[in-house]
Amino acid sequence: MAPRPTPADKFSFGLWTVGWTARDPFGEATREELDAVEAVHRLAELGAYGITFHDDDLIPFGVDAATRDQHIARFRKALDETGLVVPMVTTNLFTHPVFKDGGFTSNDRDIRRYALRKVLRNVDLAAELGAKTFVMWGGREGSEYDVAKDVQAALERYREGVNLLTQYVVDRGYDLRFAIEPKPNEPRGDILLPTVGHALAFISTLEHSELVGLNPEVGHEQMAGLNYAHGIAQALWQGKLFHLDLNGQRGIKYDQDLVFGHGDLINAFALVDLLEHGGPEGAPAYTGPRHFDYKPSRTEDIAGVWASAEANMRMYLLLKERAAAFRADPEVAEALAASKVAELAQPTLNPGETYTELLADTSAFETFDVDATAAKGFGFVRLNQLAVEHLLGAR
Amino acid sequence: MAPRPTPADKFSFGLWTVGWTARDPFGEATREELDAVEAVHRLAELGAYGITFHDDDLIPFGVDAATRDQHIARFRKALDETGLVVPMVTTNLFTHPVFKDGGFTSNDRDIRRYALRKVLRNVDLAAELGAKTFVMWGGREGSEYDVAKDVQAALERYREGVNLLTQYVVDRGYDLRFAIEPKPNEPRGDILLPTVGHALAFISTLEHSELVGLNPEVGHEQMAGLNYAHGIAQALWQGKLFHLDLNGQRGIKYDQDLVFGHGDLINAFALVDLLEHGGPEGAPAYTGPRHFDYKPSRTEDIAGVWASAEANMRMYLLLKERAAAFRADPEVAEALAASKVAELAQPTLNPGETYTELLADTSAFETFDVDATAAKGFGFVRLNQLAVEHLLGAR
Amino acid sequence: MAPRPTPADKFSFGLWTVGWTARDPFGEATREELDAVEAVHRLAELGAYGITFHDDDLIPFGVDAATRDQHIARFRKALDETGLVVPMVTTNLFTHPVFKDGGFTSNDRDIRRYALRKVLRNVDLAAELGAKTFVMWGGREGSEYDVAKDVQAALERYREGVNLLTQYVVDRGYDLRFAIEPKPNEPRGDILLPTVGHALAFISTLEHSELVGLNPEVGHEQMAGLNYAHGIAQALWQGKLFHLDLNGQRGIKYDQDLVFGHGDLINAFALVDLLEHGGPEGAPAYTGPRHFDYKPSRTEDIAGVWASAEANMRMYLLLKERAAAFRADPEVAEALAASKVAELAQPTLNPGETYTELLADTSAFETFDVDATAAKGFGFVRLNQLAVEHLLGAR
Amino acid sequence: MAPRPTPADKFSFGLWTVGWTARDPFGEATREELDAVEAVHRLAELGAYGITFHDDDLIPFGVDAATRDQHIARFRKALDETGLVVPMVTTNLFTHPVFKDGGFTSNDRDIRRYALRKVLRNVDLAAELGAKTFVMWGGREGSEYDVAKDVQAALERYREGVNLLTQYVVDRGYDLRFAIEPKPNEPRGDILLPTVGHALAFISTLEHSELVGLNPEVGHEQMAGLNYAHGIAQALWQGKLFHLDLNGQRGIKYDQDLVFGHGDLINAFALVDLLEHGGPEGAPAYTGPRHFDYKPSRTEDIAGVWASAEANMRMYLLLKERAAAFRADPEVAEALAASKVAELAQPTLNPGETYTELLADTSAFETFDVDATAAKGFGFVRLNQLAVEHLLGAR
Repeated sequence: MAPRPTPADKFSFGLWTVGWTARDPFGEATREELDAVEAVHRLAELGAYGITFHDDDLIPFGVDAATRDQHIARFRKALDETGLVVPMVTTNLFTHPVFKDGGFTSNDRDIRRYALRKVLRNVDLAAELGAKTFVMWGGREGSEYDVAKDVQAALERYREGVNLLTQYVVDRGYDLRFAIEPKPNEPRGDILLPTVGHALAFISTLEHSELVGLNPEVGHEQMAGLNYAHGIAQALWQGKLFHLDLNGQRGIKYDQDLVFGHGDLINAFALVDLLEHGGPEGAPAYTGPRHFDYKPSRTEDIAGVWASAEANMRMYLLLKERAAAFRADPEVAEALAASKVAELAQPTLNPGETYTELLADTSAFETFDVDATAAKGFGFVRLNQLAVEHLLGAR
Repeated sequence: MAPRPTPADKFSFGLWTVGWTARDPFGEATREELDAVEAVHRLAELGAYGITFHDDDLIPFGVDAATRDQHIARFRKALDETGLVVPMVTTNLFTHPVFKDGGFTSNDRDIRRYALRKVLRNVDLAAELGAKTFVMWGGREGSEYDVAKDVQAALERYREGVNLLTQYVVDRGYDLRFAIEPKPNEPRGDILLPTVGHALAFISTLEHSELVGLNPEVGHEQMAGLNYAHGIAQALWQGKLFHLDLNGQRGIKYDQDLVFGHGDLINAFALVDLLEHGGPEGAPAYTGPRHFDYKPSRTEDIAGVWASAEANMRMYLLLKERAAAFRADPEVAEALAASKVAELAQPTLNPGETYTELLADTSAFETFDVDATAAKGFGFVRLNQLAVEHLLGAR
Repeated sequence: MAPRPTPADKFSFGLWTVGWTARDPFGEATREELDAVEAVHRLAELGAYGITFHDDDLIPFGVDAATRDQHIARFRKALDETGLVVPMVTTNLFTHPVFKDGGFTSNDRDIRRYALRKVLRNVDLAAELGAKTFVMWGGREGSEYDVAKDVQAALERYREGVNLLTQYVVDRGYDLRFAIEPKPNEPRGDILLPTVGHALAFISTLEHSELVGLNPEVGHEQMAGLNYAHGIAQALWQGKLFHLDLNGQRGIKYDQDLVFGHGDLINAFALVDLLEHGGPEGAPAYTGPRHFDYKPSRTEDIAGVWASAEANMRMYLLLKERAAAFRADPEVAEALAASKVAELAQPTLNPGETYTELLADTSAFETFDVDATAAKGFGFVRLNQLAVEHLLGAR
Repeated sequence: MAPRPTPADKFSFGLWTVGWTARDPFGEATREELDAVEAVHRLAELGAYGITFHDDDLIPFGVDAATRDQHIARFRKALDETGLVVPMVTTNLFTHPVFKDGGFTSNDRDIRRYALRKVLRNVDLAAELGAKTFVMWGGREGSEYDVAKDVQAALERYREGVNLLTQYVVDRGYDLRFAIEPKPNEPRGDILLPTVGHALAFISTLEHSELVGLNPEVGHEQMAGLNYAHGIAQALWQGKLFHLDLNGQRGIKYDQDLVFGHGDLINAFALVDLLEHGGPEGAPAYTGPRHFDYKPSRTEDIAGVWASAEANMRMYLLLKERAAAFRADPEVAEALAASKVAELAQPTLNPGETYTELLADTSAFETFDVDATAAKGFGFVRLNQLAVEHLLGAR
């Protein structure tokens, strides 16, 4: 049995997740709107630690300032009552028709300016609510038609926008970092910064790149057929895993946003193992919120919404247990050694060695027994079978 | 009719392309080995400009130094006779069983050292032959099983290897740059640096990152469902398009290596348009070799091999003609303007403007007519239809 | 230049296509509702021949009988005024929340009964309007979770439903056939009868299978990575191509519903060639409506809607021209012969031959020169290059 | 702990699986050839029940009759010594260059005749060895280029070939049925009969269709993004699951042939549940061999080969245990009932009811409370979570 979630587990949910009314491209909503205050209370009861939102989730688009303040005040009150925190805030630059060709990279300059203003306003709110991460999912930044978008110019505008934002938080003294969320497609035919890699590359060009990292989502990488745990590993290696979105996806298709673990279960196990044991000496590699960005299936009523919210947390805790057992098993340790997994952390060069010494080392090439080395097996299948058996609780 | 190719078109071919004997995972070779000297002569006759190779394409793996020199000498003679150049060289770290878990990132440290030596030796040869680009396709750097590879350590070893190589060419004074070729999978379940983005991100961490760029392949990006022209645009934007591999792929499946243009034809058109007209003021965005990395289909005999080599060049020249006509058409110019494609090159901020002025500009937000702006159409479908009609030669 | 479309071209459009208000999973509508009467008039002006609809496109869900009649009457008047016909009608069993687990195969039996009633009512309307084809897209018949759906039972219920419908049209004497539209996923995680093949197989089990065929959609097959022209060929071969949905899709991703030809252009060429020349002796293989089931991109206003409608017809006509030229080119004829394409239409056995004679024919096996035969090339790349050059109008 | 496999579990392996020397499109073999006799003995020791083969796995292509007999005799002796049976035999129509455009559907008629002869010869051997199933994987029956293959003619030739074979076994009195193995692509760009559905549809056109069924492979369906358990369910529903190939695949990419369960683990659970409990009243839905068609990874030596063979069987047995526990859990029974899973097995019509009574039943439509019914949740997420927890052994 998985232990029950507590705030110490740092589970957070998007307000738009449990609040999704289940309207999809082919169907009308199957559920009522969920009040943000109720969402806060119910998530707190279930053991969550945080709640996150897009500006328009909390405050209907276009309302006046007084109404806006009321929405915020009610929400803050609920936070105070429950102890739930707001670790992350994000801006909606995709729902309103004005953003149909994107926000920061719309071909229409007026829209780009409007988008920057919408984000700046929300950055203030994020800081005010104590969020530490500001996510940017540029879901409409892209194109369906190759000739309709100058991608080089678009990236330049994207950069201009993010540079402005980072300067703003620096000047304001906000304790806030930005996290870009990549996605390959949907709702645009091709979205800019489609994968963890493209976003990391983009970040390397920014003025305050130290303030900008990633918010990779399980399903988004898997929609490109990419290995999510590999992507997270590269983000960690580059020091850029600022936040993450956990959910489930069953292969290359539309964005499913299933419960975490209800998609590629083996990769979910590898991910939790990496987050919990992938740091130096087996320490956690990531200590931020375990944020669920999923959609309760359209077939569910409100009871199903809460059951699905619980399921996310249970899945994480179960996988965490299994990963701990995997790491503690002496047979696994032996199999990892036989597969030389740790040997890869050892530098290829000797201490102080340069190419000069390497070139002089005949054992490395001239007398190296290529065929004998080639004949050795790596034992990867046995190791993987041990992992799957731990995942199945079968050891 | 497309003009006939000439060396001024800078078409180059891998020796392994026309030389592929057509052995595949389920079948034996259908063609004889092709002598490298014959390949040089035939490609020259067809109008090519360059030929490229993996060390083991030219010099059988494991031969002694004298035999190696003979192979190189014969090849140089053919180059001299034909005027063909060697713009790029690359190393085979994937065919021999010793590389079954990779070269630079094999779990086995001895293999990593051996791989570095094999590459260093080939770097010397590349420099000797006047190559300007040294491609690295790490096709075996990856895993099938998530627990069998410490991806963070693997990236660290990859970095160690590339840093050593760049230091080597700096110290040797070679006029040679490196180009990483990403691929998402096949022959490994998941390959490290799976896309243009991941490789660009990796490069940003290198000691001599100025010497390392990309060699993106059409099919490799498309195997991840990504837009190749978009990937090339990001590589150009980051100044990293050092070389490229042209071929054809029909969607997300095994690596097909079809003739360029025989896959996603519309994206091929966009690509050629970008390469030829994507620079400032419509100048070419890329002036290096147009390198074909394809495989003549297994159904073909040697006549089909040469027909397919010609087809690659014809496709490029045809698409180049169509892109030029597209760019010259006044109706296209009008449609591009209506779609505000060029407006995206205009900075979002006014000259000298910072967020302070933007925040003070009420026209940008407070009085911005969101609904009126949202109601305007972008005219992208009409623009795309014009592009497709130019592609079809129907205008 | 492509000729202008006329009703003789038999182009038809779904009312829901030009009428799509461009609401998508991440965004609100960007266009106003389009009146059905206006749609009829505009499509007629553009040269279309027919218009099709789901019941709920024409008649809002749940209105009373009088209102229903009014909507139908207005629509009929527009048809009469323009000469547009209604070749096909279909039922919406996916938008209303009641169908969230499907219609004919919902786990809830009451919903299944309701769905049958909704379809029966619409069958009457279809017959009344002179439609010859009744399409069934079971977009909600499926599941996200393997344990939540008994697929064998679901197929049995599907069969029960279709058997009832065919009996109904037989008894009523309607001149109406059914056409199942397969789709692999979206909006369900996995949809039943996911491909042309699965639907053909299902049809073979029906009581009145002669009345049930297919309505394959370009994008739906391509969302499974399948070759649409191949699927159409199998449907034709089994005598089941009753109707078809033309549009464009760029690979395996969400359902894009682009303009026909704006996706995989080479496959679109092959498709038109098959439809127009794939019958015996090069006759058309399909003579029914050329029906466009696409969505005008969300970036477009109403002018873009009509431009996109025109683009579909232009693409078809252009491809038809190119296919005709391809078939008429003597060099193509020669290349087809060299590739033995027509030889495949020749039976493998001699007239009257059985396995007995084949086993006795030593030339077929014992003395067959396998290696000499294997060495011959098929010339497929050259043939394909000719096709692509015809597609490009380059010959 | 999973119980150890015994012959009663009916596990069988292809000789080509454990015997794969691990040559792939980019690399040479990493393992020695495995003697068929050794394979038989080792598989028997591991608890397998059967072994299967392609003609050329057992008998090198092109050897004389005496050599052929020797190979068969040695193999039979090993079978006799171990008690291993040969439940299935298949023919290799893909490795030799002569089949580069296919066997039954090669454009070259002589090759088609040769292919039929090769299969007929092997049918005799299959019958002689007591095999009950004769698998046909038409891996080369297909095309890369749409214009190079007349698909309608190809299907006609396919049919001609299979009709001949079924007549042959009928006349010979062999107790042998045929099982077609679909695959969407690789090694051809598009393979004919790409999915379970297409093959079922094709079978419905055959003269002795009762003798022809399917041999679906996990990875092959998943390479098209299709749900394997759904495909198996349709095959069962149509009475055509004659045999099956178990292995693992991680999404839409090249054919991976991983160990069963090392790919999509949740779908593997659903599959085993279906096979073991999907028949009437929870009986097994399939009682034939559990056949593994996988490839021991190229990184493995011979010890890894046998470890991977064991892993396949352990995975099946573990999943079988978990499925049994899932079916026995009262909470699962309650959740299944709440989700109305069994209600789908209930006919939609009442006993004896026709459309006349249905049309007269106002409760089905006129007074049906659509909104109230729509508001009910199906509880699918909770049910799925129970399934995943049983899979994880967490209940």
